[in-house]
Amino acid sequence: MAWNNYDVIARDGDMVQLLGKRHKSHFIRLKTGAIFQTHRGELQHDAMIGKPWGSRLVSHTGNPFFLMRPGLSDIITEIKRNTQIMYPKDIGYIVMVMGIGPGVHVLEAGTGSGALTTAFAFLVGDTGKVTSYEQREQMHNLARNNLRRVDLLDRVDLKLGDVLDGFEERDVDAVFLDLPNPYDYIPQVKASLKLGGFLGMILPTTNQITRTLPVLMENNFAFIEVCEIMLRYYKPDWERLRPTDRMVAHTGYLVFGRSVMETPVMD
Amino acid sequence: MAWNNYDVIARDGDMVQLLGKRHKSHFIRLKTGAIFQTHRGELQHDAMIGKPWGSRLVSHTGNPFFLMRPGLSDIITEIKRNTQIMYPKDIGYIVMVMGIGPGVHVLEAGTGSGALTTAFAFLVGDTGKVTSYEQREQMHNLARNNLRRVDLLDRVDLKLGDVLDGFEERDVDAVFLDLPNPYDYIPQVKASLKLGGFLGMILPTTNQITRTLPVLMENNFAFIEVCEIMLRYYKPDWERLRPTDRMVAHTGYLVFGRSVMETPVMD
Amino acid sequence: MAWNNYDVIARDGDMVQLLGKRHKSHFIRLKTGAIFQTHRGELQHDAMIGKPWGSRLVSHTGNPFFLMRPGLSDIITEIKRNTQIMYPKDIGYIVMVMGIGPGVHVLEAGTGSGALTTAFAFLVGDTGKVTSYEQREQMHNLARNNLRRVDLLDRVDLKLGDVLDGFEERDVDAVFLDLPNPYDYIPQVKASLKLGGFLGMILPTTNQITRTLPVLMENNFAFIEVCEIMLRYYKPDWERLRPTDRMVAHTGYLVFGRSVMETPVMD
Amino acid sequence: MAWNNYDVIARDGDMVQLLGKRHKSHFIRLKTGAIFQTHRGELQHDAMIGKPWGSRLVSHTGNPFFLMRPGLSDIITEIKRNTQIMYPKDIGYIVMVMGIGPGVHVLEAGTGSGALTTAFAFLVGDTGKVTSYEQREQMHNLARNNLRRVDLLDRVDLKLGDVLDGFEERDVDAVFLDLPNPYDYIPQVKASLKLGGFLGMILPTTNQITRTLPVLMENNFAFIEVCEIMLRYYKPDWERLRPTDRMVAHTGYLVFGRSVMETPVMD
Repeated sequence: MAWNNYDVIARDGDMVQLLGKRHKSHFIRLKTGAIFQTHRGELQHDAMIGKPWGSRLVSHTGNPFFLMRPGLSDIITEIKRNTQIMYPKDIGYIVMVMGIGPGVHVLEAGTGSGALTTAFAFLVGDTGKVTSYEQREQMHNLARNNLRRVDLLDRVDLKLGDVLDGFEERDVDAVFLDLPNPYDYIPQVKASLKLGGFLGMILPTTNQITRTLPVLMENNFAFIEVCEIMLRYYKPDWERLRPTDRMVAHTGYLVFGRSVMETPVMD
Repeated sequence: MAWNNYDVIARDGDMVQLLGKRHKSHFIRLKTGAIFQTHRGELQHDAMIGKPWGSRLVSHTGNPFFLMRPGLSDIITEIKRNTQIMYPKDIGYIVMVMGIGPGVHVLEAGTGSGALTTAFAFLVGDTGKVTSYEQREQMHNLARNNLRRVDLLDRVDLKLGDVLDGFEERDVDAVFLDLPNPYDYIPQVKASLKLGGFLGMILPTTNQITRTLPVLMENNFAFIEVCEIMLRYYKPDWERLRPTDRMVAHTGYLVFGRSVMETPVMD
Repeated sequence: MAWNNYDVIARDGDMVQLLGKRHKSHFIRLKTGAIFQTHRGELQHDAMIGKPWGSRLVSHTGNPFFLMRPGLSDIITEIKRNTQIMYPKDIGYIVMVMGIGPGVHVLEAGTGSGALTTAFAFLVGDTGKVTSYEQREQMHNLARNNLRRVDLLDRVDLKLGDVLDGFEERDVDAVFLDLPNPYDYIPQVKASLKLGGFLGMILPTTNQITRTLPVLMENNFAFIEVCEIMLRYYKPDWERLRPTDRMVAHTGYLVFGRSVMETPVMD
Repeated sequence: MAWNNYDVIARDGDMVQLLGKRHKSHFIRLKTGAIFQTHRGELQHDAMIGKPWGSRLVSHTGNPFFLMRPGLSDIITEIKRNTQIMYPKDIGYIVMVMGIGPGVHVLEAGTGSGALTTAFAFLVGDTGKVTSYEQREQMHNLARNNLRRVDLLDRVDLKLGDVLDGFEERDVDAVFLDLPNPYDYIPQVKASLKLGGFLGMILPTTNQITRTLPVLMENNFAFIEVCEIMLRYYKPDWERLRPTDRMVAHTGYLVFGRSVMETPVMD
């Protein structure tokens, strides 16, 4: 059962997002008798268990916190990481294009700290599956802990090792590559992906795009889409509505393709 | 069973995306004996049934088509509509922020032609549920047909009528409003949404935002987020990589809030 | 004297922008006795001469036109062209970075239809100078006509021919390249540009950038800046304020550098 | 004579941009016998006078500096300020739309720290003129010092005081407002601006736009344009070309209109 199975009130064992001043978030799991400690004071878990979601609590030093169920975007943004993680703006679009949802088997390389893995695992449900390769042992273990913390580990098969020699899986519905050199893995993807299935990638630089595109063509990936997603926040002040002063200018370019039987020589 | 349950080969009853020249898409459902007709020629359904996905077919006039499993984004973009539909770039981000996935019960008003409803229904799976209100009978019926076509109608409760007097549902996980006057429906949303749950909206104009924000505050919605998502495509030419000449500049502003027990007077 | 020398009323010889329905512009030069003809009817020049700027006129078929002094942006956007012209959004930023203004001598290659040349010629004034090379005779002649039409030809030295062997000028204040292969012209620029001076370029593709940057370094151009300018219009409706539906997604990347005596090996 | 009158070598009295590590800029005026002091060491002015522009100098502590002529964009970005200044990306577009160049008389309110005033003064040349109103004495004085420092004060008439009762000038070519409440000044602008002339404004919030637009209509300003300019930088690394991680998301919305004799009831 994933972390997002919730009652109207908070219960022992629930994953909780405590939202404090300046939108500062803390994620904890409720446990009878435990104490949440922060530099803004302490809160007894027992004072939260049984409270309705959305309640306002006050620490022993008088600081307010809201008792919230964490959203998917919150979970992903907060993931413990040793590396650049993927952003909800990109993950959301990837999910839409590649059709990641209940029952789907999706293959990922590399795992990183498991942000995208978490989103995939949440979305494929109990009937789907995520297989994710990572060659750095430290990241592999970090992702395992991150997935366990949100109760999604049972939907994920984390594998340690490089995949230059190929993936063990066959006929997966979708493959996503978050690797510095995706152009080295395209034939391996071809062998594991269902014909007609989606391949997706995130690439930080234009050099990686120009190097990857011809390899996609050679391996009969068609209907290529290259794009980038930009997210601009606004200050929610109805008397002075305006975008925030600064924004993230770039996370990565997204490249998608679909595995076909022969290269389309058309249009 | 949703449309995306697929074998390695195309089977009778499958939903098919035929991708022709210039990325032109046709969506059909395979049926023994049927004939697909287009101004680029005819294709026998029997010639597709049993073929591997990704196969290249040729119409009787010599035009090529690829036999593809449709992605979620393709399905949504193609939906039969009488109105502005929502874009995958926006839906993807909505799904991430609001945590729409297997087992979730999400409430929507209004249905429109059912594009967002389709995405929600796909993602909540067999264990979740979508309830969607629409007051225009014509749109209500159109959405019904669109959802039936992709086998997702059994997950959706389509309701005809305005909701100024409130929604019948209680304790839903998330509510999304795609209405010209969302500011008139906030107390009704409050009554139906779980405390701690997510409210989302899409608003085409800044005037709607400035009118809605104070009503959200009055009704104890906190952690408000206002943003917009921009999608820029690139021409996938590795020797001349560059963005396309033109792009969609605006679909709508997204506004999100979370239902809490009291207005946070903090930060 | 440039076209923008104006009195309060329109006079014989003035350059006029007639702004009609749907912001449709016509540029003419007033001449006693002449007739302006359009598919929306005719207007006598004599009926415009002596009228205050901003007057509303009506053609013989009843269509309204406003008598306007053309702005620089209008002039440039309307320039007769056989090729992609530069956009005001890009020209404005180029002018700011490179410090193009009264008294400056700027060198350009290639001229194209003369849009950028027009802006430069307008801004350098009677005390400055623009030298512009073009190797296609047809474009060279088109630019000449375009510049003559706005009375700016006397500030511009249009030269026909390639510059692979170098520019004739020395110690110019700034050089701008609008060429498909700027990387082939960097040493020639170095020889003609004042030390400390600005080099600017517009490049449609990322491939051109990655090929040009190392050549800039080899030739001691420092403080390199690579950027792009995006312009988004809003519908000026105060009850429904929102961006236009579509926008120009890309014109070109701008690259700037400054000629120094040795490559900076620092930071 | 403005600051940008330059020889091939740096001379006594020249305005100099010393560009050091991490693109850190220092602006000084060369003076025989003076010493430039920074936390990266000292440089004798005499060691710079007579040196070619673009020369590499080394401070007494071994830190490198390049001897550069400042560009317009550099000057503006560096202006001493007590307030938000305007950005080159916006100024460049304003200049293009409003046709600010040699010989033009432009009116501005308010002066602020004089960034836009500096650009206007540079561009109108010796034959043009800038009049700028400011009601805060401190800003008025700051702008005076900033303009004097770049030798542009003789082209500018700085006036202290509010203009709710109107501007003293008549028949100016263009008016630019950088005020929190431009909607209070439109009739005053109308009285001072040549018919057919350009009015421009920068407005941080959408609320200001929606409040200003109807006042523009009432006062016979037509051909309204509302837009925003976004600037995205790229890291100039040819092996890893990509946008910078973060960017300025918003400076202000630009609004332009043209003074006409009657409101156009058309299109």
